[in-house]
Amino acid sequence: MSDAVDPNSWMQGFPPKLEERVLFADPAAAQFPKLRWALNHYRELVPTKPVRRAPVPSVLPRAAVEAALDALPVRTMTGEDTNWADGFASIHTDGLLVLHRGRVVYERYFGACRPEQPHLLMSVSKSFVGLIAQWLVHDGALDENAPVTNYIPELKGTAYDDAIVRNVMDMRIGVKYSELYTDPNAEVFDYARAAGMTRRPPDYSGPEIVYDFLRTLKKEGPHGEGFAYKTVSTEVLGWIVKRVTGKPLATLVSERIWSRIGTEEDAYFMIDTAGTEIGGGGLNATLRDIARVGELMRNRGAWNGEQIIPAAVIDDIAKGSSQEAFSKGGYTTLPGWSYRNMWWVSHNPHGAYMARGIYGQSIFVDPKAEMVITRLGSHTIAANTATDPVVLPAYQAAAEALMAGKV
Amino acid sequence: MSDAVDPNSWMQGFPPKLEERVLFADPAAAQFPKLRWALNHYRELVPTKPVRRAPVPSVLPRAAVEAALDALPVRTMTGEDTNWADGFASIHTDGLLVLHRGRVVYERYFGACRPEQPHLLMSVSKSFVGLIAQWLVHDGALDENAPVTNYIPELKGTAYDDAIVRNVMDMRIGVKYSELYTDPNAEVFDYARAAGMTRRPPDYSGPEIVYDFLRTLKKEGPHGEGFAYKTVSTEVLGWIVKRVTGKPLATLVSERIWSRIGTEEDAYFMIDTAGTEIGGGGLNATLRDIARVGELMRNRGAWNGEQIIPAAVIDDIAKGSSQEAFSKGGYTTLPGWSYRNMWWVSHNPHGAYMARGIYGQSIFVDPKAEMVITRLGSHTIAANTATDPVVLPAYQAAAEALMAGKV
Repeated sequence: MSDAVDPNSWMQGFPPKLEERVLFADPAAAQFPKLRWALNHYRELVPTKPVRRAPVPSVLPRAAVEAALDALPVRTMTGEDTNWADGFASIHTDGLLVLHRGRVVYERYFGACRPEQPHLLMSVSKSFVGLIAQWLVHDGALDENAPVTNYIPELKGTAYDDAIVRNVMDMRIGVKYSELYTDPNAEVFDYARAAGMTRRPPDYSGPEIVYDFLRTLKKEGPHGEGFAYKTVSTEVLGWIVKRVTGKPLATLVSERIWSRIGTEEDAYFMIDTAGTEIGGGGLNATLRDIARVGELMRNRGAWNGEQIIPAAVIDDIAKGSSQEAFSKGGYTTLPGWSYRNMWWVSHNPHGAYMARGIYGQSIFVDPKAEMVITRLGSHTIAANTATDPVVLPAYQAAAEALMAGKV
Repeated sequence: MSDAVDPNSWMQGFPPKLEERVLFADPAAAQFPKLRWALNHYRELVPTKPVRRAPVPSVLPRAAVEAALDALPVRTMTGEDTNWADGFASIHTDGLLVLHRGRVVYERYFGACRPEQPHLLMSVSKSFVGLIAQWLVHDGALDENAPVTNYIPELKGTAYDDAIVRNVMDMRIGVKYSELYTDPNAEVFDYARAAGMTRRPPDYSGPEIVYDFLRTLKKEGPHGEGFAYKTVSTEVLGWIVKRVTGKPLATLVSERIWSRIGTEEDAYFMIDTAGTEIGGGGLNATLRDIARVGELMRNRGAWNGEQIIPAAVIDDIAKGSSQEAFSKGGYTTLPGWSYRNMWWVSHNPHGAYMARGIYGQSIFVDPKAEMVITRLGSHTIAANTATDPVVLPAYQAAAEALMAGKV
């Protein structure tokens, strides 16, 4: 599927024509087709805070087989036959990289995506917050069984009042907050306005920052039961992580991960006016750098022979959580999956797990196939339910082909 | 002079206290003391566009003599005796670097300034626009004697209607536009609102982008006569440069300069909502990277044996312009100076010239002393008239000491 509008045609000329501008204040900027430009250029739309790269970039060895993978047959979840290249093109992929045994076997960029240009990762950001939280639990700095309010007294009287940290880490919080992007009254938009991620009306009198918004949240249903995907829970976890360490999220991600695995580029967070990094969906990074993160995960926290993250932390993610609890979340394309430390765990025979963000962002780790796939996208539809029917079978097809030495 | 408030104390905590936040919407962010934090963190306040760094950073050889320079006696323009260290501390210096014969002899950071963190260069930005414009003139791509409206027909009927490009390049334009920062009604603030550099009131109905603002400017006085420092003329020149090359300013600065002299960091421009880089004052870069630019200038456009910029372009800057025209500008601290291609030329026996920005930004090139000094600052007062009495004698003292081998 080719675009009716070239994603590189926005914001051209001096000045660009009014209808070709991608304006933060215009809801169209956050929708296809302008989205195809916007997700690659967020720092040009909003204030951002850098996540410092490594002093020296690491070399990712290459053994590229792009053509072979492109031709790989893929049968979608709905039974249609396509191939890898057509399948990913049909869902407006921006960047796609496959590592097999640590070597780059596939790397392509589409639309307005460039190798050196960070792309908005959306909820893939959450997995960084969850990873750091579990790391702190492992180190004994954070008690997963402690009440949230032990760390954030400001949340007394809110939905999080009687929750424990583990409930937050696995998104099993009863809170009145809808993430339904097709409902303009969903609270996700109140959150976005507070965070400065979307335009505020001139008469806006809502919360000025994310943390003020979190303090308005009311309880709805029990904690610790069904999985309920609520971005605000990541913001709560990010707040906890910062209180525990005394460091901003940008510093934590850089010191603990980004600077230590030979990343090529500074990543960056969108921030609110208090400098709060939007941990729920505001991290931007390049395709190659998130591939390094995937490879770090696949190697159970080791990088070039050095243990960067304790293996037990990665194992705790990969083992997943309650599949039964997850089944309450209503994710029809993810049967038998679970959610642990803000990662999505397949429980398939390969032990695959992933970080996922709307419009097609993912870090997919397949330990058995010794494969990592990172993808950036700007699909017409936000929810990954729209793209999973192509994406997950294609990832599986690549895993099988690489394991069998067929590509 | 030590700060009453540590510049690193702003924006700390999760969240920072309201009174300790540096808010784009708050005029205090652009004033001392919050300015001391803000000038080092502009990307956290506004949208920005990167200027791509070099593929591999160049090594700046070191022969550091910080202590000797710090102790260097300096007699200020007003006859006070101080020394280098105290002099620069008294005017809230953020970063100070001296190159002598290409070696770093002095490099210090103060306040909230960090080696890897770009600092707002204010009007030092202008010198990049002027340099590129002169380069295009040299290459025959831009006719300095052509009417501005040959390149920008949108400026017909404005102050620039009967101006030629050279008038713009040397700031000898008769336009009703005041740069007086102490006058809240000065047009510089209308410009800043249009550019998105300062807060717009809720009922704002002014120009949406810089170019729309330029189209409102009316003539006041003749062109081609007295020097009149008007930031809007740099925006006009930037517009011309982009029309001539078909490339954004960020691309031009990167392709022609930044990527070719081993810069360590991406620089970045503040931009308006049309993506227009604020060439008049929106470039942010690190102290070391602008030192590389100064060294490139000192070597008449050569870098490591390669001619990056034609020597004639640098010579055209260094030769200066009419001292008599300049004297009409009212710069009491710069007697006998002139302004050429948006650089300030001393006409002193050393042939020194500089790029200058408010609150203390400078790139100072002293060819005879084989010295380059770059400085970043966040002084209490915007105009460099307040800091020149210390800065210029200190630079001269360093030049003499280095030439005499005394430090």
